[in-house]
Amino acid sequence: MKTRRVVVPELEKVLHKDYKVLDHGFVRVIDYMGDDSSVVQAARVSYGKGTKHVNQDAGLINYLMRHFHTTPFEMCEIKFHVKLPIFVARQWIRHRTASINEYSARYSILDKEFYIPDDSQISEQSCDNAQGRGKVLSKEFSQEVIDLLKHDATLTYNSYSRFLEKGLAREISRINLTLNYYTQWYWKVNLHNLLRFVRLRADEHAQYEIRVYAETILNIVKFWVPLTYNAFVEYCLEAKTLSKSALNVIRQLVNGQEVSRESSGMSKREWNDVMMILGK
Amino acid sequence: MKTRRVVVPELEKVLHKDYKVLDHGFVRVIDYMGDDSSVVQAARVSYGKGTKHVNQDAGLINYLMRHFHTTPFEMCEIKFHVKLPIFVARQWIRHRTASINEYSARYSILDKEFYIPDDSQISEQSCDNAQGRGKVLSKEFSQEVIDLLKHDATLTYNSYSRFLEKGLAREISRINLTLNYYTQWYWKVNLHNLLRFVRLRADEHAQYEIRVYAETILNIVKFWVPLTYNAFVEYCLEAKTLSKSALNVIRQLVNGQEVSRESSGMSKREWNDVMMILGK
Amino acid sequence: MKTRRVVVPELEKVLHKDYKVLDHGFVRVIDYMGDDSSVVQAARVSYGKGTKHVNQDAGLINYLMRHFHTTPFEMCEIKFHVKLPIFVARQWIRHRTASINEYSARYSILDKEFYIPDDSQISEQSCDNAQGRGKVLSKEFSQEVIDLLKHDATLTYNSYSRFLEKGLAREISRINLTLNYYTQWYWKVNLHNLLRFVRLRADEHAQYEIRVYAETILNIVKFWVPLTYNAFVEYCLEAKTLSKSALNVIRQLVNGQEVSRESSGMSKREWNDVMMILGK
Amino acid sequence: MKTRRVVVPELEKVLHKDYKVLDHGFVRVIDYMGDDSSVVQAARVSYGKGTKHVNQDAGLINYLMRHFHTTPFEMCEIKFHVKLPIFVARQWIRHRTASINEYSARYSILDKEFYIPDDSQISEQSCDNAQGRGKVLSKEFSQEVIDLLKHDATLTYNSYSRFLEKGLAREISRINLTLNYYTQWYWKVNLHNLLRFVRLRADEHAQYEIRVYAETILNIVKFWVPLTYNAFVEYCLEAKTLSKSALNVIRQLVNGQEVSRESSGMSKREWNDVMMILGK
Repeated sequence: MKTRRVVVPELEKVLHKDYKVLDHGFVRVIDYMGDDSSVVQAARVSYGKGTKHVNQDAGLINYLMRHFHTTPFEMCEIKFHVKLPIFVARQWIRHRTASINEYSARYSILDKEFYIPDDSQISEQSCDNAQGRGKVLSKEFSQEVIDLLKHDATLTYNSYSRFLEKGLAREISRINLTLNYYTQWYWKVNLHNLLRFVRLRADEHAQYEIRVYAETILNIVKFWVPLTYNAFVEYCLEAKTLSKSALNVIRQLVNGQEVSRESSGMSKREWNDVMMILGK
Repeated sequence: MKTRRVVVPELEKVLHKDYKVLDHGFVRVIDYMGDDSSVVQAARVSYGKGTKHVNQDAGLINYLMRHFHTTPFEMCEIKFHVKLPIFVARQWIRHRTASINEYSARYSILDKEFYIPDDSQISEQSCDNAQGRGKVLSKEFSQEVIDLLKHDATLTYNSYSRFLEKGLAREISRINLTLNYYTQWYWKVNLHNLLRFVRLRADEHAQYEIRVYAETILNIVKFWVPLTYNAFVEYCLEAKTLSKSALNVIRQLVNGQEVSRESSGMSKREWNDVMMILGK
Repeated sequence: MKTRRVVVPELEKVLHKDYKVLDHGFVRVIDYMGDDSSVVQAARVSYGKGTKHVNQDAGLINYLMRHFHTTPFEMCEIKFHVKLPIFVARQWIRHRTASINEYSARYSILDKEFYIPDDSQISEQSCDNAQGRGKVLSKEFSQEVIDLLKHDATLTYNSYSRFLEKGLAREISRINLTLNYYTQWYWKVNLHNLLRFVRLRADEHAQYEIRVYAETILNIVKFWVPLTYNAFVEYCLEAKTLSKSALNVIRQLVNGQEVSRESSGMSKREWNDVMMILGK
Repeated sequence: MKTRRVVVPELEKVLHKDYKVLDHGFVRVIDYMGDDSSVVQAARVSYGKGTKHVNQDAGLINYLMRHFHTTPFEMCEIKFHVKLPIFVARQWIRHRTASINEYSARYSILDKEFYIPDDSQISEQSCDNAQGRGKVLSKEFSQEVIDLLKHDATLTYNSYSRFLEKGLAREISRINLTLNYYTQWYWKVNLHNLLRFVRLRADEHAQYEIRVYAETILNIVKFWVPLTYNAFVEYCLEAKTLSKSALNVIRQLVNGQEVSRESSGMSKREWNDVMMILGK
C-alpha cells in the first residue's frame, strides 16, 4: 500500500521474514517507524538548522552518538516477533523500556519445542569469568548432556500433556515444563533502547543464547538505519571507556614514560584489561 | 511510497496537516505505526486465537479496555509536531512515558510569538475548584488583562533581542521571556500512554489551554484507531469509578431503599459527585 | 540506631521478618522510606497549605486517591526480599516500574526447592474464564498431579546436579530445571506502583500463586501507611469503574424505570457484570 | 527516633539543612534509603557470596561501576527539596526516571523571587560551542543586562499581582511571569538515576545554572555513599569513552608509531578532543 511516511526499502524487503536463531527460534520485523532522517530531523529541531547532504547527516549522527545526545534516537521505533527459550526471555525482559506481549500459557497450550545446545556450546564453567563458559567439554560428556536435556524435556512435556488431557488448569499444568521450552512475543522498542539492548547483549560477557539474538537484531539495524549503525559501532560497540587512572597511564605511555601497575592505582584485573586494549 | 506495513488511509490524508490550536499553536501528525489491527494482533498472541470479523475485533478491543489489559495498546505509536506555550509544555512534560525533542533556546533564537487568551478565557478564580476558573470577568477588565499581557511580553522580548544583539549568550538571554511564549517539540508516544494523557488533560479539571490540545489529539485518535476510540470513550472517558461506599448507596437506591449522606460514610463533596453522576 | 527521618514503629517491628507464602516462599521488608505524612507533605507542596489534624490528612489522602492524583504516592518507597517460584517471577516482572536484583543461576547454584500446589489448588480449567481455574479435581487425580510434579522436578534437578559435578557451565546447566523452582530477589518500588501491582495481582482473575504474594504485601501496606491503605480499599480495590452505558442503566434503575440488556447496548458479559455489582 | 534500617550518620547531620545555590535557590535532603552496603547486598544476591571487609566492598562497587552493572545502584533512594528557577526546572525535568511534586501556581501564589546572574556569568555566546558561553562581557553591558532583567521581572510581577487582586484565575495570571522566577519541588530518585543526572548536568557543557545544582548534589552523594562516590569519579565522571578510531590512534602512539589525523579517519573536532585527553 501507499504511504506518505518515511519508508526504508531495504527493511521493507525483509518485513515478516524469519531470521532463524538457535534450533527453533526466530526474529521477524513486523513493523517500524522512522529512519536515519528521523534522528536528524529531531536533532535539528533541538539543536537548530543545518545542511542536508548525506555526509553531513552522518556527521550529525556521529556527533549525537559521541556526546550521548540520546533523545533523537528515540524517534525511531521497531516491532519484532521473536521466538525464544524461556531462560533467554528471562534475561531479555530485564530491559524495562520496551513494550511486550507474550504468548500466554495460561490461555494457550505450549508446543513441544525446546532448545538443545549443539556440541560447540557444551562448555565447562569459566575460571576467570564467574558467569561464563570456558573450553568445550569432551564429545562423550557432550552427548550425555544432550541426551539428558532431551530426555528430561520430553518427560516433563509428557506430564504436561497428561495434566491437560485430564482437565487440569493450564496455568498450573505449565509449571512442570523446563526453562528451555520456547515461548514467543511481540517486542516493540525505540532505537535508543534497542541499541542499549544490543550493547549489553551482543557483548562477549552475555550468555551465548541471548547474544545470537542480539547479533541478529544488530544486523537488521544495519539495513534500517545505516548511519546510526556506523556511529554505534564506532562510538559504542567497539569503543572503550577508560577510567581516570587508565587515562593517566596512557598519557605516560604516549609520552614515552615508564609505568607500572603498582604506581597506577589499578587492580590487577583492570590493569590487564587496559593492557589488552592497548595491544600490550 | 509503497510499504508493506499497516496503513491507515484516513490518517495518511492528514499527515503533516496543521491542526490549529490557541492563537499560534498547532498539532501535526508526522509519523505513526500500527492501527486497531495491531492491538488485536498483540492481544491474540497473548490470549490465544480468535476470529477475524470486524465486530469481533471491536468486541476484543472493548474487552481489553474494560479489563485494563493495557499492553496491546502499547503496540501502536504516533509522533506529533506540536507548537505550544511554555506554560502548557510544563504541564505536558509531566507525562514521563513519551519521547520528546524540544526546540532549544540555548541553540536557536525564539520567535516573537506569545499566547494571549481571548475574552472568553479571562475568568475569575474558581471558588469550589482551587485550581480552576470561574465566571468570565468584565469586558473592561478583560481588555486590561489582554493589554498588559501584550505589553509585558513585547517588552521582555525587546530586552531579549537587545541581549542577543550585544552578544549575550542565548542560554542566558532567554530567561527574560514570559511563560506564554511559544515553544515547539516532537512528541512520540504509544497509544496506551496517549490515551492516559488524553484522559487527564481532556478532563474538565485540566487547564483550558492544555485541554484544547488534548481534544485535538483525541480527534486524531478517532481517525487513526476508530475501534479503540469507541472503547476509550465508553469505558474510560465517559465512565466513572465508583467507590465502595458509592456502590453501596447505589445498590440501596436500585432496591428502592432510602439513603442519606450521613449513613453513607461519604464526604459532602463525594456525595454530591455521586448524586450528579446519578442525575439526582 | 537513631535517625531523624520519618519512622513507622509498626513497620519497624516486622523488618526482616519472614512472611511465609506458598510452600517455600517468603516476603520480607528490608527497608522503607516515608509514610502517610510524606504523601501529605508532597500533596501540600503541590496543592498549597492545609491543616494538620489527622482526620484532615485522611481527607486529603482520600481526595488524592479518588481523583487519580498519583504523584504524591510516589514519595514513599519500600524494598522487599522475596522468594518465589520462577513462573510467578515471570508474571511479577511485567510490572516494569520497579528495581530488581535477582539471584543469578549463572553465578550461583540453585537450591533443590520447588513449588508443589496443595490439594485445594489442583483445579480444572475454568469454563467461563479462559485463563483461570474451575472446581477442584478428584483426590485421586490430585495425588497423581502432585506425584508427577515431585517426580519430574526431582529428576530434572538430578540432571542439573550431574551437569555441575562434571563441570558444565552453570548458565547452561540450569536450563534443565522446571518453572516451579524457587528463585529470589530484592524488589524495590514506590507506593504508587506497589498499589498498582496489588490491584492487578490481588484481583480474583490473577493466578492464585501470585495473588497470595500480593495479599501478603497488601497486609504490610496496612501497617506501613494506614491512611493510604484505607483510601486504596475504598476508592480502588473495592471500587468499580462503570462504563457510559452502565451508568445509563443505573440512572434508569435509580429512577424506577425498566431496563433491558437489549436496549442497553451492553454485551451479555458486561450486563452480567453490572447486575452482579448491583446485587441483582 | 530509633530505626532498624540502615543509617548514614554523616547524612543525618545535614538532613533538612539548606545548601544555598544561586541567589535564592537551595537543595535540602529530606529523606533517604540505603547506603553503600545496600548496593553491595544487592550485588551479592545477584552475583553470589563474597567477603565482608571494607576494601572488598570498595572493590565490588568499583567492579559494578566499571562494568555498567547498574541495577544494584537502584537499591538506594534519596529525596530532595529543591528551589530553582523555572528555566532550570525545564532542563531538570527531562530526566524522566524520578518522582516529582512541584509547587503549583494554579493553586498557590508565587513569591516575588527571581534569579539574576552575577557579573561573572554575563558572558557572550560561545563560538565553538553552539549552546554555551564564551568570555565575560564588559562591566558596562553586564550592568545593563542585570538592570533590564530586574526591571522586566519586577514589571511582570506587578501585572501578575494586579491580575490576582482583581480576581483573575491564578492559572492564567502566572503566564505573565518570566522564566527566571523561582519554583520548588520534591525530587525523589534512585542512586543510579541520580548519578546519570550528575554526569550530564555537572558536565562542562551543561548550563552553569543547572551545573551548580548538580555539583551541590554530588557533594551530598559523597557523604551518603562514599564508596560509590569514589567509583563514580574514577570510572564515570573523570573517565572518557574512546571510539574505535581513537583507540587505534592510541595503540599506534603507545607503540611509538607516527599518526596523523588524515589517516585516523577522525573529524577535526574529534581529533582535537582525543589529543586534549592525551595531553598533547
